[in-house]
Amino acid sequence: MANSEYEYVKKFEQWDALPPANWIVVRVDGRGFSKLCKKYDFEKPNDRGALDLLNEAAWEVIKSFVDIVLAYGQSDFNCPNSFVLHKSTTLFERRASKLATSIATAFTAEYCMRWSTHFPDKPLTSPWPTFDGRCVCYPTREILRDYLSWRQADCHINNLYNTTFWNLVLKGGMSGTEAEEFLKGTVASDKNEILFSRFGVNYNNEPELNRKGTVLYRAYDVVNDAAESAIKRAKADPSSKSQLEKERKRKQKARIEMQNIDLIRDRFWQERAYILAEKVGHVLSEE
Amino acid sequence: MANSEYEYVKKFEQWDALPPANWIVVRVDGRGFSKLCKKYDFEKPNDRGALDLLNEAAWEVIKSFVDIVLAYGQSDFNCPNSFVLHKSTTLFERRASKLATSIATAFTAEYCMRWSTHFPDKPLTSPWPTFDGRCVCYPTREILRDYLSWRQADCHINNLYNTTFWNLVLKGGMSGTEAEEFLKGTVASDKNEILFSRFGVNYNNEPELNRKGTVLYRAYDVVNDAAESAIKRAKADPSSKSQLEKERKRKQKARIEMQNIDLIRDRFWQERAYILAEKVGHVLSEE
Amino acid sequence: MANSEYEYVKKFEQWDALPPANWIVVRVDGRGFSKLCKKYDFEKPNDRGALDLLNEAAWEVIKSFVDIVLAYGQSDFNCPNSFVLHKSTTLFERRASKLATSIATAFTAEYCMRWSTHFPDKPLTSPWPTFDGRCVCYPTREILRDYLSWRQADCHINNLYNTTFWNLVLKGGMSGTEAEEFLKGTVASDKNEILFSRFGVNYNNEPELNRKGTVLYRAYDVVNDAAESAIKRAKADPSSKSQLEKERKRKQKARIEMQNIDLIRDRFWQERAYILAEKVGHVLSEE
Amino acid sequence: MANSEYEYVKKFEQWDALPPANWIVVRVDGRGFSKLCKKYDFEKPNDRGALDLLNEAAWEVIKSFVDIVLAYGQSDFNCPNSFVLHKSTTLFERRASKLATSIATAFTAEYCMRWSTHFPDKPLTSPWPTFDGRCVCYPTREILRDYLSWRQADCHINNLYNTTFWNLVLKGGMSGTEAEEFLKGTVASDKNEILFSRFGVNYNNEPELNRKGTVLYRAYDVVNDAAESAIKRAKADPSSKSQLEKERKRKQKARIEMQNIDLIRDRFWQERAYILAEKVGHVLSEE
Repeated sequence: MANSEYEYVKKFEQWDALPPANWIVVRVDGRGFSKLCKKYDFEKPNDRGALDLLNEAAWEVIKSFVDIVLAYGQSDFNCPNSFVLHKSTTLFERRASKLATSIATAFTAEYCMRWSTHFPDKPLTSPWPTFDGRCVCYPTREILRDYLSWRQADCHINNLYNTTFWNLVLKGGMSGTEAEEFLKGTVASDKNEILFSRFGVNYNNEPELNRKGTVLYRAYDVVNDAAESAIKRAKADPSSKSQLEKERKRKQKARIEMQNIDLIRDRFWQERAYILAEKVGHVLSEE
Repeated sequence: MANSEYEYVKKFEQWDALPPANWIVVRVDGRGFSKLCKKYDFEKPNDRGALDLLNEAAWEVIKSFVDIVLAYGQSDFNCPNSFVLHKSTTLFERRASKLATSIATAFTAEYCMRWSTHFPDKPLTSPWPTFDGRCVCYPTREILRDYLSWRQADCHINNLYNTTFWNLVLKGGMSGTEAEEFLKGTVASDKNEILFSRFGVNYNNEPELNRKGTVLYRAYDVVNDAAESAIKRAKADPSSKSQLEKERKRKQKARIEMQNIDLIRDRFWQERAYILAEKVGHVLSEE
Repeated sequence: MANSEYEYVKKFEQWDALPPANWIVVRVDGRGFSKLCKKYDFEKPNDRGALDLLNEAAWEVIKSFVDIVLAYGQSDFNCPNSFVLHKSTTLFERRASKLATSIATAFTAEYCMRWSTHFPDKPLTSPWPTFDGRCVCYPTREILRDYLSWRQADCHINNLYNTTFWNLVLKGGMSGTEAEEFLKGTVASDKNEILFSRFGVNYNNEPELNRKGTVLYRAYDVVNDAAESAIKRAKADPSSKSQLEKERKRKQKARIEMQNIDLIRDRFWQERAYILAEKVGHVLSEE
Repeated sequence: MANSEYEYVKKFEQWDALPPANWIVVRVDGRGFSKLCKKYDFEKPNDRGALDLLNEAAWEVIKSFVDIVLAYGQSDFNCPNSFVLHKSTTLFERRASKLATSIATAFTAEYCMRWSTHFPDKPLTSPWPTFDGRCVCYPTREILRDYLSWRQADCHINNLYNTTFWNLVLKGGMSGTEAEEFLKGTVASDKNEILFSRFGVNYNNEPELNRKGTVLYRAYDVVNDAAESAIKRAKADPSSKSQLEKERKRKQKARIEMQNIDLIRDRFWQERAYILAEKVGHVLSEE
């Protein structure tokens, strides 16, 4: 039962490394999550427990993949999560299938295994929640930012719609079909008006978690400066190799920040220039 | 916060549909499973509970993806599992990333959520088990069979090595390094001889589960014939549309068989010609 | 001016090798050939000189790429030519861009440089004729044959249309627009009838060159048997290495046949089983 | 002979559009050009006629593909030519095979058909010169510039080597093998020294054509400003549609400049900021 005569089959695997120097977004989407929402009777339009679970899962994924610089999770029930890998990453030799499956399975495991903490009274049963994933390359910082702006604008649009829809259904006594029909052709200001005049809801006072989604990022600021100088000292003194390694690890452990914050305007990025810096964790000006 | 100015970013997603008419293998491998083996103190060279868990997870994956005609799981701790999708599948428009991530996350969820049944005394803790996955296309039945033969020959080679190695360590009192050194350059017959003369182990009497790995396939045989004629009857009588649908579903629910059996010789395939038939669940001769 | 700091740019080239074991078709199409037809006042519906030039160019391309087993050229003015590379070819490591550009530029050079032989009175002037090209993989003989059948059926459909159209214009006194309008919605039998009743043309008597297009293939039959046994003799006698090489070359020089013949029915392929044989130039039964 | 049953074969063609917003380089290399050099007895180390022919061919290619902003041709006998398409190009929907084959066949046709002008006494005979081609994407201006720097540094290194090698052979009386051996392990300064001390050649006085290769680019400067304002006027006045079209064409016809000039330092790019401008033919500052 020698193996050699079959080994030619290895050649059928296509090499799928993503091009260098591009920012890689691994986007992960819930599969069939509208069914899941019904099955576990999630609160409308946003279930706090479900969002917390998603964000905790994303947090853990970032913790285990040190080349992820930022993740953005929309507040949809469909819960798309975008993980941004630094453009210089060589993780899995940048192979698309390895990246997408490793991140998507990690996210799935976190989501399933942490479920019971967030829903102690709703045991998770088969069929389990699963996620699909894909890699997309963005050649420049500007286009990557446009991608994230697109996602956050989408989150806003969906959340405004959902908030209005569910107010019409839950408080306004409409059926789902009636509410859908009623909202056809309305623009953002119409929905704001409906919310305010009918239900006394000022959309701008809705939780930012729902309106803006959740941004998670490695906060390299303070930690980083200390680590950087320690690394420099360690490099200067070749005897302190273990020290160098220790500092590197500290750097990797840069705390992860979670915020419900605007990603579209410049402010977020200006104040945290290290997130999209040329080198991981540096500030842009240093380059 | 209009979305339109950002929508151009959608165009960066590359279309990754696999070519038609090829058999698609989605291979799923455990990530860092040698650590996992140590952490949960798996029995050497094969842990029955761990193999049962893998096979149960694979079984459930087949159940949820009706276009999978066969899966083969090696008995390695690394537990590579190959899921074969029928060449005619149009699942997810044959998009590689969708296929790989959906199957890999389903496998991960099954593995994590069914863990406690197989290891009631070893609670699963973070970091959770995860899997990577990839799609490979095989243009013909013959090459697909060579792929599966390659995997099964590999399973045999690894298992013979592991069985000998662990006998040397556990019963022979060698250290891991010593056993490794001792086995360097040995061929199959040498290992058989070592097992027999030193430890009284006849390798051919080792469990087939370990030596052959596990084959899971949709058994279309009997069920199929009945379903086929029912479908034909239903088609002839257009009033019985719901009947047609019912039969179709029955067909999809063809029972799943699990066997530890030789895939390299022709016999398996001749007796179950429907597995690689031109049309899902038909016999080759009908085509 | 050291080069090393820039060498990283090499990594941006994506590896584009086509999957093994697939038949590779390189299809080459004339760019903007309707303009060319007008510029050089080609005869309608088929210009014999133009077709001869195309076929001569294809012939020469086959001669220089020994892994091409067959080529099929349609009689359109657009002159698509399909070059079939044996599924086992390792030419240019099967890289798609190398294959497509090498064959397309060879075809272009032959077409331009042989022009004056076929059109001594119409000197070729800038802009020169050029061609685009692409590679397509076909996983099995059957699908490859379906591809060629598709092309030949297409050739027939276009030629019947063009023959009718130009008879209506040149002999029937219609304008182009009138003829187009007149033929809208007609099927094959209508066109046959128009040709016969109006112009006394029996389409089946039209030249096969126009109706069937042109097949070029390496004829391995007789030459091959002789070469094969010579190679076997040479292999048995290791001293005759140069003899072996000589025979191999003779085999490569298998004469090229050109025929206007049906590719859709089985006969062509049964009588020349060596064309799509498992090994280049063998007969199928030997495999 | 209906076509419909075969049309499924169209689906085997893979979609190969290059990702948006990347600069596309189509690189074209001579196939087997060392043989060609011998056959036509090109002058060593650089044949002026051969270089002129290449540059004329490149010029004509730029003229016909308006989205090419710059081309760079090395002075090697192998004559690699890099054509840079603006990152915003939608030519052929950015399909890699269409781009590579269309440009490579155009280059081949120009090279073959213009041969006799440059070599009136050396008629071109079969096998004709041909070229292969490939597309490479560069995500940013900076990396594209590094690519071009790499090519120009390579040109310099090769030309210095060739100049020294051929002086040793032609004037120094060495055989090719002797010269090769002699130069093994030498660095740039060694070669400069050999050239100067042995043959009185100051490498820096060698023609820039040989040392720097040839840059061709669309010169949008002056023409552009005039055209821009004319286009603005035309847009403001909707009645002057034909005027608008005329100006657009004038813009497209921006004259093509040919220079043997340094591409590695910033100066070239600063003085011609429009070449890599965000919008074709604009200046960077306008964006």
